[in-house]
Amino acid sequence: MSQSRLALLGFGNVGRALARLLQRKETELKEKYAITFSVTGIATGRHGSAIHPNGLDLEQALHLVESDQSLSLITQYPIPNSLEFIRNCSADVLFENSPVNHHNGQPAIDHLRTALELGMHAITANKGPVVHAYRELTELAAKMKRKFYFESTVMDGAPIFSLFRSALPATQLSSLRGILNSTTNLILGRMENGETFEEAVQYCQQIGLAETDPSGDVDGWDAAIKVAALVTVLMGLPLKPQEVDRTGMRGITAKMVAEAKAQGKRWKLVCTAERDGNTVKGRVAPELVSPSSPLYSVEGSSSIVEFHTDTLSSLSIVEGNPGPETTAYGLLADFINSVKNQ
Amino acid sequence: MSQSRLALLGFGNVGRALARLLQRKETELKEKYAITFSVTGIATGRHGSAIHPNGLDLEQALHLVESDQSLSLITQYPIPNSLEFIRNCSADVLFENSPVNHHNGQPAIDHLRTALELGMHAITANKGPVVHAYRELTELAAKMKRKFYFESTVMDGAPIFSLFRSALPATQLSSLRGILNSTTNLILGRMENGETFEEAVQYCQQIGLAETDPSGDVDGWDAAIKVAALVTVLMGLPLKPQEVDRTGMRGITAKMVAEAKAQGKRWKLVCTAERDGNTVKGRVAPELVSPSSPLYSVEGSSSIVEFHTDTLSSLSIVEGNPGPETTAYGLLADFINSVKNQ
Repeated sequence: MSQSRLALLGFGNVGRALARLLQRKETELKEKYAITFSVTGIATGRHGSAIHPNGLDLEQALHLVESDQSLSLITQYPIPNSLEFIRNCSADVLFENSPVNHHNGQPAIDHLRTALELGMHAITANKGPVVHAYRELTELAAKMKRKFYFESTVMDGAPIFSLFRSALPATQLSSLRGILNSTTNLILGRMENGETFEEAVQYCQQIGLAETDPSGDVDGWDAAIKVAALVTVLMGLPLKPQEVDRTGMRGITAKMVAEAKAQGKRWKLVCTAERDGNTVKGRVAPELVSPSSPLYSVEGSSSIVEFHTDTLSSLSIVEGNPGPETTAYGLLADFINSVKNQ
Repeated sequence: MSQSRLALLGFGNVGRALARLLQRKETELKEKYAITFSVTGIATGRHGSAIHPNGLDLEQALHLVESDQSLSLITQYPIPNSLEFIRNCSADVLFENSPVNHHNGQPAIDHLRTALELGMHAITANKGPVVHAYRELTELAAKMKRKFYFESTVMDGAPIFSLFRSALPATQLSSLRGILNSTTNLILGRMENGETFEEAVQYCQQIGLAETDPSGDVDGWDAAIKVAALVTVLMGLPLKPQEVDRTGMRGITAKMVAEAKAQGKRWKLVCTAERDGNTVKGRVAPELVSPSSPLYSVEGSSSIVEFHTDTLSSLSIVEGNPGPETTAYGLLADFINSVKNQ
């Protein structure tokens, strides 16, 4: 029986969904994988942090944060900052869910590096470290005989990285094509139903999908960072988001959307990457798609990626109706696979 | 370095595609997985069989069969029948690719059982043993510390069984929906382009997709056996093809196809399975689908399956442009995963 001590750095929608999922799956993990766990640390952005080497009461922690109280009420140690949290949390596995920094991946990279150096598995839903430090963190993990896994960074919890890692051995990825940004896909869908761009953005902000400044989604940065992550990991070719040929969706007017609809077509913000020897071209740009394309039926916040490889000429993964629970599942799957494959 | 001796029982389009794929991937298997191999036995239906404990010359074997000569020219031993072939082939891995028997799964079940009892990994593209002997063969494999893998039985080489086995831990499948029979999907597509049912069937026979008697496809038997295989393995509930509520596509007339097309819709032979506690309802029947469905854009011999689970509310896998090479890849992936996970 393998007992894992877990630390959650980040306890927002995703972190709390992970806590609930861990509770729901506790018996299944024990019976099916012989995995038991305790949560020895939780760090939040606005509700303090707590560490208890014998395990925190998850239900109590959820209650405190959801009723806007501070976790420092239940901590056994003072916690001055994130790095000290990691150093003192007594964990075997760190779930790193700090906000993404597209520019340089910090401070998440430091968090993950510290965790790996301390001998923890390092699991994240944060894309920054994947595009800015994939090689460094992967090599460090190998050296420490631990795992650096990040399934939830692209298409929420849908298995993409683990698919290539375990289910598609001896396969070379030559190109990919997909819809990877939920917000713009939902905006375009709502514009088809007659909303203006501004109304659709406002809706996405209301449901918590878009940020106050929606430019990360609308200008294609989120899509570009996902293309960069897929290429870096699955093709083994480091690609920075800045190197992706990027056109956002601001040029798509209500009139263009209506005209496309009248023709039975749809505008989509399409991501592509194509390998050419040891170089790769990544691109994000609006495209008009017809019903004969698998991209056409990908509605709302759903996503799709189509892979072309040397063993399967076309393999697509479609994820429908994602939410914080889906992202949390990707983290849970990474945890199970880290411990199983150890 | 793990040296594997392989035996190929069945050397038709798929078996020969596997031989070519093994040749193409030889260096990659050695460098990436430390796997080396020799092929110590090949058995065919109409071109004799051959065994050589030190390894057959694959190129020579391919040449003999493709030029309509017999493998018995190069065998070191006389081979009276399939079971004797398995007993004498000196292999660590059996690739079982005999023709499918929907009724009782024989003789493939006997082949796989014999291989496992002799301590070989047993890998097959044959659906029969999965629906008629999944539990027995899986338990025997576990007892012998070997693998019984069958990725290529549903959706050719697309990762379905390995997805749940390795990339979707702690996930309970509640229902599925898909297009799993290539022949009927291609027939319906060609009828949309104005061919009669008979002309479309004839085309499928010409390209080697449909058999002389197309009823296995047209009456929904192939789709039903795939539903039964998915339910049996992924839901853990034994289901026989005869228990699937099955309506074939003979009731879909050219007029119905044309009317659907005029409305921007398509007829598809849709497979579904829904779990209800410890029972399951499996169904194959024609359905009218609109462009908002992911099934709409699945054309020709492509296939799709959408999974609804307790961790990911909707996850679909789409495979495009399959062929014998794709099926061969599923066998290769099973081989690599058998040896890696040993």
